[in-house]
Amino acid sequence: MTLLLDNVEAAEMVSEKGQALGMQFPALIEIDCDNHRSGIRPGDPRLLDIGARLHRGPGSALRGVMTHAGDSYNCGSIDALRAMAERERAAVVECAQALKQADLPCPIVSVGSTPTATFAERMDGVTEVRAGVYMFFDLFMAGLGVCSIDDIALSVLTSVIGHQAERNWIITDAGWMALSRDRGTAKQRVDQGYGVVCDLGGRPIDDLIVADTNQEHGIIAKRNGKPLDMSRFPVGTLLRILPNHACATAAQHPQYQVIAHDPVVEAVWPRFSGW
Amino acid sequence: MTLLLDNVEAAEMVSEKGQALGMQFPALIEIDCDNHRSGIRPGDPRLLDIGARLHRGPGSALRGVMTHAGDSYNCGSIDALRAMAERERAAVVECAQALKQADLPCPIVSVGSTPTATFAERMDGVTEVRAGVYMFFDLFMAGLGVCSIDDIALSVLTSVIGHQAERNWIITDAGWMALSRDRGTAKQRVDQGYGVVCDLGGRPIDDLIVADTNQEHGIIAKRNGKPLDMSRFPVGTLLRILPNHACATAAQHPQYQVIAHDPVVEAVWPRFSGW
Repeated sequence: MTLLLDNVEAAEMVSEKGQALGMQFPALIEIDCDNHRSGIRPGDPRLLDIGARLHRGPGSALRGVMTHAGDSYNCGSIDALRAMAERERAAVVECAQALKQADLPCPIVSVGSTPTATFAERMDGVTEVRAGVYMFFDLFMAGLGVCSIDDIALSVLTSVIGHQAERNWIITDAGWMALSRDRGTAKQRVDQGYGVVCDLGGRPIDDLIVADTNQEHGIIAKRNGKPLDMSRFPVGTLLRILPNHACATAAQHPQYQVIAHDPVVEAVWPRFSGW
Repeated sequence: MTLLLDNVEAAEMVSEKGQALGMQFPALIEIDCDNHRSGIRPGDPRLLDIGARLHRGPGSALRGVMTHAGDSYNCGSIDALRAMAERERAAVVECAQALKQADLPCPIVSVGSTPTATFAERMDGVTEVRAGVYMFFDLFMAGLGVCSIDDIALSVLTSVIGHQAERNWIITDAGWMALSRDRGTAKQRVDQGYGVVCDLGGRPIDDLIVADTNQEHGIIAKRNGKPLDMSRFPVGTLLRILPNHACATAAQHPQYQVIAHDPVVEAVWPRFSGW
C-alpha cells in the first residue's frame, strides 16, 4: 500500500498513525498538473514542507510524486493531447527535482491518464505510467481520437429478450447495472448512448446503440430512432455492447471472461475491487 | 429461479430448453402497465397465447404475471402516484383474471416500484409486492415526495483527504466508484449532485452536496458554490453521503455495515449481486 496525499495535515496524520502502529507508511505527494482536481501545483512551496514531514516523520516514508492528467479528457485534438502529456511529465519531473535539491528522496515519478500515455513523446525522468483504460480502451477514448472502435477490447455480452416493435426497440437483459451509468460520450461529437451494439465477433451493427437503459433492461435502437428490422434480432440473439467507459463498466462485474475466438473462454480473470 | 418474459418466442425457447434439460422452468408473464419499457399491455391477445405455451409446454410452468410501474418515477404529485398505483394493480389483476378465465393458472400476481408500493390504497388481487428502494429510500424518492431526507437509511462513509480552498472544494475519498454514476436527481426540482453531505449521525450539513466526482475522489461544495469554512472539515473528518439512488450506490459495494448508533457496527450483511 502506498498512500497519496497533497497536504501537510495528511502528512502529519499518516506519520503519527504509522508511528502508533510501529510502521512506516510509504507515501507519494500528489501533484496537480492541469488544475483539474486535487494535488499541489508545481512551484508551490508546500511541496518541500510535505516532503520533509513525510521523510523525517517517524511513521512515514517519502516515496516520490504522482499526478493524473485528468484534463486530457477534455482535449480537442491530438496536438492538444501531446501538449498535455508534456505538461504532465514536466510537472512531476520539476517537483521531483525540487525534492532532490532539498535532499529529499524521490524514487518514484509517476504519471497517469490513458490519452497522455498514448501520445506522450517523451518520458524523461518518469519512472511509472499508470494508465487504466489503456489496456481495454473504450468509446470515450475512441471519441477523443485516442483509439479506434476496433481497438476496444472489452464488451458486455447480452441477450435479446423481447421487442417493442411499434417503438423500434430491441429489449436486452443488460441494463445500467451491467453497463454502468456512465454516459461519458454524451458531451462528445458522437453520443454513443449507453454503448455501441456489436455482433458476437465485435463488429458494430449498422448504427445501433443502447439508446436507453433501465436497471436490468437495455433498450437498443438506431441512433436516429428510425425503424429497424426486428426479424434480424430474434429473442435469444447474443450481442456485445462496447462500453462508454471501461473502468465503470468493468466495475459492475466480478470477473473478465477472456476470449480470442468467440465463444471459447480461454481464461477467467477475477477483478480487484473495493477499497 | 423464476423467468420473466413477454413474448411467444421466449415462451417457446424456455419450454424447449427446459425439456432438453428435463426441467420445468417456472415463468411469469411481464405486463406493461404504464407504457414505460417492456411487457404486453392488458387486453393484448398475446397474453393467452404466451400463457398457454408456458402452461402446456413440456419444459415450462406458468406461475403468473408481474409488472413494474417504472413510470411512477415521473409522477408529479401524490395524487398522481396514487393513481399510478391503482393503474399498476388493475393491469396485473385484469391479466390474471383473463388467464384464469382461460383455465390457465396464475398463482402469482406481482407488482413493483417503491412509489406505488408506498402510496397504493388497495392491493386486492395482488399476491406479491417487489419494492427495492423501499427498504432504504434515497434522494430521488425524497425529491419525488415519497419519503423525507430523514427516512434515508443508506449512506456511504467517506473521509476528507484534502481541500482546494480557492475553489471552495473539500476533497474526499468517495468518488463515483463509491457513490455510483447515478444522477437521478439532476432533473428533479432540487439537484442533489452526487449526494447530500451529512455528519456521522446522518444529519445534513448546511447546504453541502457532492458537487462533482472523479473515479476515486469526491468534490464537496455548497450547492450555490459559495465559500465554506474549511476549518470545520479538517483532513480526516468522517462524513456520510446520502445516495441519489440506493440500488446503484449499494451495487458498488460488496456488503452493508449495519449501524444503529454510530460507530458500532452491529452486523455485516453481504450483498447479492450479479446475474
